[in-house]
Amino acid sequence: MTAIVLARGPLRPRVSAELTGFVYAYGGRIVAHDQYVDQERQRYFTRLEWQLDDFAVPRREIAARLAKAVQSFELAFDLYFSDEKPRVAVFVSNLAHCLYDILGRWRSGEWSVEIPVIVSNHDKLGEVARRFDVEFRHFAIAPENRAEQERAQIALLHEKRIELVVLARYMQIVGPGLIASFPDRVVNIHHAFLPAFPGARPYDAAYRRGVKLIGATSHYVTAELDAGPIIEQDVIRVSHATPVDEMVRLGRDLEKIVLARAVWAHLQRRVIVDDGRTIVFR
Amino acid sequence: MTAIVLARGPLRPRVSAELTGFVYAYGGRIVAHDQYVDQERQRYFTRLEWQLDDFAVPRREIAARLAKAVQSFELAFDLYFSDEKPRVAVFVSNLAHCLYDILGRWRSGEWSVEIPVIVSNHDKLGEVARRFDVEFRHFAIAPENRAEQERAQIALLHEKRIELVVLARYMQIVGPGLIASFPDRVVNIHHAFLPAFPGARPYDAAYRRGVKLIGATSHYVTAELDAGPIIEQDVIRVSHATPVDEMVRLGRDLEKIVLARAVWAHLQRRVIVDDGRTIVFR
Amino acid sequence: MTAIVLARGPLRPRVSAELTGFVYAYGGRIVAHDQYVDQERQRYFTRLEWQLDDFAVPRREIAARLAKAVQSFELAFDLYFSDEKPRVAVFVSNLAHCLYDILGRWRSGEWSVEIPVIVSNHDKLGEVARRFDVEFRHFAIAPENRAEQERAQIALLHEKRIELVVLARYMQIVGPGLIASFPDRVVNIHHAFLPAFPGARPYDAAYRRGVKLIGATSHYVTAELDAGPIIEQDVIRVSHATPVDEMVRLGRDLEKIVLARAVWAHLQRRVIVDDGRTIVFR
Amino acid sequence: MTAIVLARGPLRPRVSAELTGFVYAYGGRIVAHDQYVDQERQRYFTRLEWQLDDFAVPRREIAARLAKAVQSFELAFDLYFSDEKPRVAVFVSNLAHCLYDILGRWRSGEWSVEIPVIVSNHDKLGEVARRFDVEFRHFAIAPENRAEQERAQIALLHEKRIELVVLARYMQIVGPGLIASFPDRVVNIHHAFLPAFPGARPYDAAYRRGVKLIGATSHYVTAELDAGPIIEQDVIRVSHATPVDEMVRLGRDLEKIVLARAVWAHLQRRVIVDDGRTIVFR
Repeated sequence: MTAIVLARGPLRPRVSAELTGFVYAYGGRIVAHDQYVDQERQRYFTRLEWQLDDFAVPRREIAARLAKAVQSFELAFDLYFSDEKPRVAVFVSNLAHCLYDILGRWRSGEWSVEIPVIVSNHDKLGEVARRFDVEFRHFAIAPENRAEQERAQIALLHEKRIELVVLARYMQIVGPGLIASFPDRVVNIHHAFLPAFPGARPYDAAYRRGVKLIGATSHYVTAELDAGPIIEQDVIRVSHATPVDEMVRLGRDLEKIVLARAVWAHLQRRVIVDDGRTIVFR
Repeated sequence: MTAIVLARGPLRPRVSAELTGFVYAYGGRIVAHDQYVDQERQRYFTRLEWQLDDFAVPRREIAARLAKAVQSFELAFDLYFSDEKPRVAVFVSNLAHCLYDILGRWRSGEWSVEIPVIVSNHDKLGEVARRFDVEFRHFAIAPENRAEQERAQIALLHEKRIELVVLARYMQIVGPGLIASFPDRVVNIHHAFLPAFPGARPYDAAYRRGVKLIGATSHYVTAELDAGPIIEQDVIRVSHATPVDEMVRLGRDLEKIVLARAVWAHLQRRVIVDDGRTIVFR
Repeated sequence: MTAIVLARGPLRPRVSAELTGFVYAYGGRIVAHDQYVDQERQRYFTRLEWQLDDFAVPRREIAARLAKAVQSFELAFDLYFSDEKPRVAVFVSNLAHCLYDILGRWRSGEWSVEIPVIVSNHDKLGEVARRFDVEFRHFAIAPENRAEQERAQIALLHEKRIELVVLARYMQIVGPGLIASFPDRVVNIHHAFLPAFPGARPYDAAYRRGVKLIGATSHYVTAELDAGPIIEQDVIRVSHATPVDEMVRLGRDLEKIVLARAVWAHLQRRVIVDDGRTIVFR
Repeated sequence: MTAIVLARGPLRPRVSAELTGFVYAYGGRIVAHDQYVDQERQRYFTRLEWQLDDFAVPRREIAARLAKAVQSFELAFDLYFSDEKPRVAVFVSNLAHCLYDILGRWRSGEWSVEIPVIVSNHDKLGEVARRFDVEFRHFAIAPENRAEQERAQIALLHEKRIELVVLARYMQIVGPGLIASFPDRVVNIHHAFLPAFPGARPYDAAYRRGVKLIGATSHYVTAELDAGPIIEQDVIRVSHATPVDEMVRLGRDLEKIVLARAVWAHLQRRVIVDDGRTIVFR
């Protein structure tokens, strides 16, 4: 079992040595240590992971001791433990490909998470939830009940102790209340290579523009539509001979893989959001 | 509803015009027409698809009429109809990622097939079959019962009227009897970029060789191991810092996508096998 | 030596047979025949190439005879011969990578073209032109002489009998007069994945947006900036740790390869422009 | 101006802190610090780069002082300075594309190197050398003079104070004497995705096997043909419709880009060879 620290702060001499020194001082064995320096802004980012087996600090005291050890460096950090299973809610509408992909990864043991609930603005995918023995909650959304339903969703997410919300082709704008409740904790998949083709019907737009590659982008959701920090992107080749419905078909594989990579990076505690961009340690 | 012809033969002037002429003569509307000429061997390959709505030849007579129309061209052809649902058997061992992917594509309606049975040399994935309401058949295989079990598998495949066998990370060599019964009808996924790293444990071999890309290859199974006609391949980037277990993890996504592309091409009647290679019309 | 026809028109039954029939009727041997049908708009596009060795129609009469043969099909077509060397002008500013790449392809015999002149709004790259024994023409451009210099450039291009203008990182907007004189004959390379990041300094914009892939786009120049028909695009992976100057460095290889692929497709007579998009036969 | 250390050794606690501590102790500013731990073999690799502007240790004493500082860690290291221009010899035969690419990168200032000599077993590319004002040395090689010519080549390389030998599609086996004189200093480009298709005529072999991707591999040359440590690889997509001569054409761009990336990594002092594999810091 390991502890993982994600930290950020001003670049200072010996900040790295201080962090690793903390681990060594109590007998920890470092298994991964990634660092990134934004030279322009002189900021330091790191992910440090170490074995807890013979670590002399009790688990519950690590955060406080580490805070004390590095306080002069003005580091902000989050501490995670590898045996914690993040609790994830999946939001869907009518398209099943990302949902099936996520549930398969979970049930096959590829992802070490809990998925206590699937939320949808339609009822079509309830059958998929039943196949995988997950609770399915349908929130019909209309202009007049939008705010109310959003509050109900937030309440549900808190009740289920959800840490991460995954929008798996959820074709409904997520309200500012929910985003504010889960900052950098709502991951979306957009079916285009952002910033190209934001908004609705990107494959139609891609076809009309005559692009030779189509893409998918997974990002954290922020108040501005399709403008949040990008976690992962990828593309595939198309040609003049690829009609829109074939783009839609090809795009399904791209979307589910790009979303899965982004969620995996998040679950592995490899992502730091800073200044509207992500640092994704590999 | 459409008819699809996959044809091959010697390259002769006007062979293309003769085929399309047949369709036009009976009021068919061509929706796709792909051709390939092997200039070196002077051979012609084509895939022709047309709407049957107002086609003047009854469905059951098309094959005979077409054979007559093109007989002087020495074309060999297969005729398919888009409303037929190919019956597919999936063979698995202990790894679930390709199986989940295939079953999700089927149940979400992405693939128009029937999957009446899942065959395994282990019993671990029976639970996945149950989730998706598919019959699961376990054939324990040992040196002394190998031939007998293979005969039983063939009998099962015939009983279930299987057209295509998909080896979805089936870690057991398929016997010559089964291959002979399903020529160019058994699709495998190998977790390497063939012809590099055939056989067992290709990720270990890739790591030791220090390659900078790892791949997956989907091919029709022939008597020679990992040497059958390649349908689809793809790769992803790795580095010195990618240990074998991470290659295995990254490879899962590659394997399932490459296998799905190959099976899709087969199901769409886009693949012709010729001289140990495939022609895959896009 | 071959003849090449690029044709477009309404989709009509037997249009393909009529074209190939014309070739066969006079003893031509077809070496390549590509077709594309825009099903939505019911339009037909084709590239047909045949050996002229024993072709019974004299070269200079082919266009007229073909026009007559297909007149009832309302096809528009262009006729080319493989032994013609297109005359190409390269426009550059201060960056040499695309220019070196083009000149190397020419001098090594990879491209069968003539490059009689290099045009620049700076004088820095005259040395490169001298290395490759090409005339270098410097047109200093200022707001007050812009129209006059454009007229001089057009006159030069006509004098040199230029067929194709390649903007090889030419950092100056090409005027409407020149574009109108060379419709679908001015190829540009833009250092971004259009329609993302049009205009100036796209790598800076890509860095700020935090994209995980950067791209390059080669397109025909039209009156609207960076909005012309796309011929070719490609991307490469970057990360949070790729600063702008490294994007610039990585982008150089991408730009020169994407531009070269687009120019090659044009030179091989593989590109048809239609409705703001390109059909690029492979 | 910067100093760069490439170091390797057993993984020990605080080895990283010791190295960075050396730099900080004398007022150096670290501009890049990459590390890799081979967990399986418990070995540590690093690349450390720092500004020398206010560094308190004179340049010529850095190596000795650093050796002393880290001696208890059993680190082996090489020290480089960013203002040194590596002296590179390019070996070619009859194909010009990699040579043009390398010379263009050099003359445009993209690579900060000296290229005092081009060596060839043919005389065809002397013209290219003259265009770029480089000495061209022709060594005709026959079975009876092979050893003698190799000795002459080694003498030439020493006379020109060559640090790195680049085999830019040099179609002649390099002898063991030369390889031994330049360990991990001879970079080759092989026109296949190694370990697939080693040896001669890989595109023919790729066509016959029917692969769907072709590749190129740049590696350090060792005594065993095409088996040296891989620095960089990449692939491009082909299909059944890609004949061998088109693979050759497509391969040219792949080869020159892959070779250039490998040489760049070497020149930037980003490559460590260990146990038959490379660590390439990005």
